[in-house]
Amino acid sequence: MNAAPQTAAVQTAAPQAVTVIGLGSMGSALAAALLERGHPTTVWNRSPDKARPLVDRGARLAATPEEAVAASPLTIACVLDYDALRTILDPAGPALAGRTLVNLTSGSPEQAHAALAWAGALGADYLDGAIMTTPPGVGTGQMMFLYSGSLATLDAHRPALEALGEPVYLGTDPGLASLYDSALLGLMWSTLTGWLHGAALTGADGVKATDFTPLAIRWLSAVTGFMTTYASQVDAGHYPGDDATVDVQIATIDHLLHAAAGRGVDNALPELLKSTMERAKALGHGSDSYASVIEALRKPAGDA
Amino acid sequence: MNAAPQTAAVQTAAPQAVTVIGLGSMGSALAAALLERGHPTTVWNRSPDKARPLVDRGARLAATPEEAVAASPLTIACVLDYDALRTILDPAGPALAGRTLVNLTSGSPEQAHAALAWAGALGADYLDGAIMTTPPGVGTGQMMFLYSGSLATLDAHRPALEALGEPVYLGTDPGLASLYDSALLGLMWSTLTGWLHGAALTGADGVKATDFTPLAIRWLSAVTGFMTTYASQVDAGHYPGDDATVDVQIATIDHLLHAAAGRGVDNALPELLKSTMERAKALGHGSDSYASVIEALRKPAGDA
Repeated sequence: MNAAPQTAAVQTAAPQAVTVIGLGSMGSALAAALLERGHPTTVWNRSPDKARPLVDRGARLAATPEEAVAASPLTIACVLDYDALRTILDPAGPALAGRTLVNLTSGSPEQAHAALAWAGALGADYLDGAIMTTPPGVGTGQMMFLYSGSLATLDAHRPALEALGEPVYLGTDPGLASLYDSALLGLMWSTLTGWLHGAALTGADGVKATDFTPLAIRWLSAVTGFMTTYASQVDAGHYPGDDATVDVQIATIDHLLHAAAGRGVDNALPELLKSTMERAKALGHGSDSYASVIEALRKPAGDA
Repeated sequence: MNAAPQTAAVQTAAPQAVTVIGLGSMGSALAAALLERGHPTTVWNRSPDKARPLVDRGARLAATPEEAVAASPLTIACVLDYDALRTILDPAGPALAGRTLVNLTSGSPEQAHAALAWAGALGADYLDGAIMTTPPGVGTGQMMFLYSGSLATLDAHRPALEALGEPVYLGTDPGLASLYDSALLGLMWSTLTGWLHGAALTGADGVKATDFTPLAIRWLSAVTGFMTTYASQVDAGHYPGDDATVDVQIATIDHLLHAAAGRGVDNALPELLKSTMERAKALGHGSDSYASVIEALRKPAGDA
């Protein structure tokens, strides 16, 4: 794919060979992005028929996980969970020695720690990662791929990983990618559910979601401004309520509860938000900013 | 303030006189923004001492609401609630006749409808609005001020209203500004609480909120991309799960629940999000996109 002579410079080196284990919709998108950038790509999946569209685009289908791992210095795994990862790759153990495994499977920080130890025992370099996009966003270059663990391992394979999305390195603790992944997905589910609640509420009075949503997105850019202000307050443990207080928010959310109840829209989410604010108030934060709600979240409701 | 001769053209007309009723932190910010743009500004507040900083900047303090309303063709009200609005302005009824009242007080769509009828009976033009920012954002020109009701009334006072923020007109139904306000605030509370939950989760492992938040903000720009895609699905009532399904989200949220439980972070929010997804699945949307969760929100959990 590259017309420059391969001896010219490091920058023009031929794309590295990469193996992709797991060809669900996400794994298939990863392999497709690598092929797009000219990486010789070997794939393996439990059901080999999933590999057909990739083989049509130039991928090599390996017969076994061991053969797949042996084909490339770098293996990228994206499978159902960490248990599946071990089940698939344990028989390929000897091939992993001296090679690198980048694990983009969803899991917990604790599972990432265990996977690092397991890979280390096999003599493999290991990097844990999380994909912050849906399959259509893979390979566009704009989406975040979170990594944690060895920065040297990330740097050694940066061109291949950049083919997938923008690598964002979080630190040496291998659990950080999974931890951020869970935290950011929680933010996504909260945001999407709040947005759908608003779409249901306005939709009840005839507003189209495609009319409500551009304003919702514009409003979120103001909300991210509040987040930037409040992040410093969280780190300081001091929440001056000079823009808007928890007390004011508690009074205002009643308008939402009233409007939603009158339109037959489920109120479980705003009711929980209100009770969480009330717990912050009970902790003495009524005249503090919304950032103080973190104090309630750090004390589960069941705790006395 | 304007050096151009006042006879030159409509564009260089002297700024219109405006009255502001209610000098809480938001009302004070409104009056300050009008003064900043050179509008002769009359103010009234139940506790007149709140007016002092504005009088120092050139505002005129009226002795009564009636005197305040009589001072300007346009009165902007931002008080505690709609009941307070009526209590304050009923005695000023004769002065309102032939003048315009823009009501930026927080309330419900039903209260906006009632306020329009009340103002109409007094012979006043009425516009209902909602302020989508905190007081520090007033007058910066970037923040949204939502209006609903008579577009002619909005257009007649556009320069004064533009001094406060960008007017966004929603339609002739006077309740729309309050309805959008509630919907957008609901989105804000959901988003901020989800973000604080993530900050508590990552903070438990030593991540600063000021390190987590830039990634959270960047991630939200990806989430708004999903919202744009899903808005069309909501309007169509058809939710193809070709990017990520409700079933996948239900499986993934367990990592968040596990990580948060292990760190002593309150899980009421992710548990509610999961149960809402499970209600969407029970309605037959397991293999649909997250947009299908709106179907669960339209059917309160208590309904059989």
